[in-house]
Amino acid sequence: MGRYTIGLDYGTNSVRCLIVNATNGRELGEAVWNYSHGHEGVILTDDPNLARQHPGDYVKGTEETIRSALRAARRTNKSFRPADVIGIGVDTTGSTPLPVDADGSPLAFDRKLARDPAAMGWLWKDHTSIAEAEEITALAGRLRPHYLAKCGGTYSSEWFFSKILHCLRTSPKVFDAAYTWVECADWIPAMLTGNESPDRMTVGVCAAGHKAMYNDAWGGYPDKRFLSRLDKKLGALRGRLQAKAHPVDRTVGGLTEQWARKAGLRSGIPVAVGAFDAHLGAVGAGIAPGTLVKIIGTSTCDMMVVPLKQKLADVPGLCGIVPGSIGPGSYGLEAGQSAVGDIFNWFVNYVQPGGKAGSHEALTRAASRIAPGASGLLALDWNNGNRTVLVDQRLTGLLLGQTLYTTPPEIYRALIEATAFGALTIINRFEEYGVEVRQVVNCGGIAEKNPMVMQIYADVTNRPMKVSRSPQTCALGAAIAGAVVAGRKAGGYPSVPAAQRAMTGLKRKVYKPSAKAHAVYGQLYALYRQLHDAFGTRQWKGNLYNVMKQLLDIRAKARR
Amino acid sequence: MGRYTIGLDYGTNSVRCLIVNATNGRELGEAVWNYSHGHEGVILTDDPNLARQHPGDYVKGTEETIRSALRAARRTNKSFRPADVIGIGVDTTGSTPLPVDADGSPLAFDRKLARDPAAMGWLWKDHTSIAEAEEITALAGRLRPHYLAKCGGTYSSEWFFSKILHCLRTSPKVFDAAYTWVECADWIPAMLTGNESPDRMTVGVCAAGHKAMYNDAWGGYPDKRFLSRLDKKLGALRGRLQAKAHPVDRTVGGLTEQWARKAGLRSGIPVAVGAFDAHLGAVGAGIAPGTLVKIIGTSTCDMMVVPLKQKLADVPGLCGIVPGSIGPGSYGLEAGQSAVGDIFNWFVNYVQPGGKAGSHEALTRAASRIAPGASGLLALDWNNGNRTVLVDQRLTGLLLGQTLYTTPPEIYRALIEATAFGALTIINRFEEYGVEVRQVVNCGGIAEKNPMVMQIYADVTNRPMKVSRSPQTCALGAAIAGAVVAGRKAGGYPSVPAAQRAMTGLKRKVYKPSAKAHAVYGQLYALYRQLHDAFGTRQWKGNLYNVMKQLLDIRAKARR
Repeated sequence: MGRYTIGLDYGTNSVRCLIVNATNGRELGEAVWNYSHGHEGVILTDDPNLARQHPGDYVKGTEETIRSALRAARRTNKSFRPADVIGIGVDTTGSTPLPVDADGSPLAFDRKLARDPAAMGWLWKDHTSIAEAEEITALAGRLRPHYLAKCGGTYSSEWFFSKILHCLRTSPKVFDAAYTWVECADWIPAMLTGNESPDRMTVGVCAAGHKAMYNDAWGGYPDKRFLSRLDKKLGALRGRLQAKAHPVDRTVGGLTEQWARKAGLRSGIPVAVGAFDAHLGAVGAGIAPGTLVKIIGTSTCDMMVVPLKQKLADVPGLCGIVPGSIGPGSYGLEAGQSAVGDIFNWFVNYVQPGGKAGSHEALTRAASRIAPGASGLLALDWNNGNRTVLVDQRLTGLLLGQTLYTTPPEIYRALIEATAFGALTIINRFEEYGVEVRQVVNCGGIAEKNPMVMQIYADVTNRPMKVSRSPQTCALGAAIAGAVVAGRKAGGYPSVPAAQRAMTGLKRKVYKPSAKAHAVYGQLYALYRQLHDAFGTRQWKGNLYNVMKQLLDIRAKARR
Repeated sequence: MGRYTIGLDYGTNSVRCLIVNATNGRELGEAVWNYSHGHEGVILTDDPNLARQHPGDYVKGTEETIRSALRAARRTNKSFRPADVIGIGVDTTGSTPLPVDADGSPLAFDRKLARDPAAMGWLWKDHTSIAEAEEITALAGRLRPHYLAKCGGTYSSEWFFSKILHCLRTSPKVFDAAYTWVECADWIPAMLTGNESPDRMTVGVCAAGHKAMYNDAWGGYPDKRFLSRLDKKLGALRGRLQAKAHPVDRTVGGLTEQWARKAGLRSGIPVAVGAFDAHLGAVGAGIAPGTLVKIIGTSTCDMMVVPLKQKLADVPGLCGIVPGSIGPGSYGLEAGQSAVGDIFNWFVNYVQPGGKAGSHEALTRAASRIAPGASGLLALDWNNGNRTVLVDQRLTGLLLGQTLYTTPPEIYRALIEATAFGALTIINRFEEYGVEVRQVVNCGGIAEKNPMVMQIYADVTNRPMKVSRSPQTCALGAAIAGAVVAGRKAGGYPSVPAAQRAMTGLKRKVYKPSAKAHAVYGQLYALYRQLHDAFGTRQWKGNLYNVMKQLLDIRAKARR
């Protein structure tokens, strides 16, 4: 009899269900369902900062994808039976808070509020709450600097309390109608197990710790006095949040009879605490102490774990340092680059260079024939700001070294190199603070599809670039959580690391650094850091006369 | 009876003949002949630095264009007769030195050397002599710093002695076969008047002063001892150069019988001393004390004159300060931008942005709808180095402020603005050294064809931009020299200024600065100067943290 687990991955535009063989992590069946509300699943208005999701899509998508993935699994393996599924894990985008009533039902399910965007899920990329984020950052800076120390020094407009405070200020009717607010990552496991009642809902430490300033060291969520200084009603809400948040190895409850029937599964199978996609993605990519997992897409998440017993400084510039957020027993460390694929997409889709030769594929082919340094170009990867290590959205792109003969493939390669320099800056930051990076595992679309990018990353960082075996590391990570909560007796695992050892792996192809290329990139990186510090920090003081000259010297040598 | 003069303009790819009414400067007839040798008139080899011209093209082109322009003049005005032509002026590219034999005949006319590029005209843009230029600069810096003070501190690979020394070093056979070397601008008037014999050839001070370190203050060309330090044979050549160089109001001689017959003109009509295209272009645009003439094409020449009686400092960063080089009685001052139209052409032809929307016309249309500051972009106009005020070819382009939504028209406009900031830097440099700029007259293709560029220049510099009436100011300037050497009695003029007053003019359309736009550009220019000094000078010391922030603030205000 087989042992399988389900990973449910709720993204920005769709939900994915993956059925995984718990013995070896191989995928048996998969299904994707595109959300039906709004524009590709996102509710938009004429406010360009607004981005919401309708929670009805989560419910519908869960049923659709589980049933369809079960059928797909059956097609792959005739002997597979839905009763072989022993556990379920869930990952979602975040911070995506939902206002809910006293029964834990999203306000958007109330017919009177069904069309009010404030009553829906406030999607991670909703930026309506910039003023409130600044207010929270300023207050915490004055009264609770330790809150900020764990999240890079700035509380973001994308996060839990900014959004709730903005709702309180701008949609008081919705705020007042809400009993409390829950993260999408917490609400879905609660819904699957009939534990939506806010007073007994189990919440995950990943969302709470990274986005809501939760930390056991200071008694959980931010204290009532602090929140009351923002608004009395926000202070009052504190009493209706959970006292304790948990890692993904804990069960929220068993699948309800009703859901078992709808989905075609056994009732009572355990559902794990939910977490964010990037964090469970890191689990699915085999994260462990010493392994940096890079999830490379439009932007990157760069995740590491450090055993709780190890002494760990507050690494400046990280997005978050949260005990248990990736797995129990370790600090989860999150860094990232605000734009990677998005920069390449900008060049291809907005600048539209080179006529027919301007596709990603054609530019990649041409750029791969250019030697390191031969273009004379140098860029900063800041078109969308800099998440790590500068934590500054108010930065912009830079390209220098252009002549009258600079070509689109040269620019394309310089943009890729800039993101590699940004990646190296993150690696260096980890190591400067004692978090050793012994291997780098990449996943996500670009890692899968663009060997040139991976080779440049290897050459720039002087480290082998490995790629996760599974192209769906987020859903796989959720399935791993499902295998852990299923427990040993049911055919699961006693711990996340044990499950990872069995269920994750790497592709055979490893991109090895070239010493010759790295020697050139070492010189270019010194110039990148000079620009990085000159434009990105207040402290830097100096002169940039050398930059263009050295680039010309490097170019002359590279072209010889 | 009409009074007409001829302007002959020898360019890089073609020669142009303009027949001008000396009374009012109006054009009566025009003809262009494309050189027949090489690639579009330029002899190329597999050395990308090499660019030569065959002097046979000058001879052929003179005959072809005069005859054809006379026919065109006849078509325009039936009563016009070739005998009404009272004088001829000549302008050419330069420094374009030709090796000649003891009779003044170009070595390329010798059948044995006809195919040797070293025996041809060494076109202004030939860059084979970089090493020799550095050698001359270094030696002059040590022994004759005053030579360099008049040419911006650097002797260029594009100039007279660099090319001759390179020939001496690399083609000694040609060097030894040459009796002496003459500028194309001097050889053509000599040829038209039968005065090619090197020992009685009349040379122009424009070429000698700007490109060959000629100055009456130190006895003409560089002294023999100095040249001998470079090479004894170069020292010996000094004795075969003219003792004295002259402005364009002086006659070289009368048109020979032979040329009169070939061209269909009266023999004996006076031919003026030759000068470079940009300098006679300034004359044709009406240059006078207080008037800056900007010839805007692929690059710019920015010319001013200062009366000889006025005290004039060595303005640092200028390409040259030469008494009489534009007209007698004044210093000719030459500044310039290494690339202007070439930068826009690079963006359109190399980057090829925006698909079908990527033509100059479409980008201009779209860019003209963008408010100053609204793009958030800032660029440096250094894709081909910086001629004035930094005098540094080893500089490159820079673009900053890009986001994930930056469009090609925004970049196109930022590149135009960068060239306007470069233009303002030149204006400021003149004024910092007491050369007041009371009006700006533009000419050249871009001034004629792109009103948006002119408006941006007006807004950036906060000065009205005027445009020369004639689109062919170089040939017109040569025709003005022809009218001056013709003299008053023949229906010409007693002086260059008198001829200019009658024969030049401005278009009615004046681009007036907008106070609102200039206020924004004032802020952007401060940031441009910060980048300019940070990347372009050794002395600057500081921090650039403010640059991206201020651009975002300016952008926010401009978009409001």
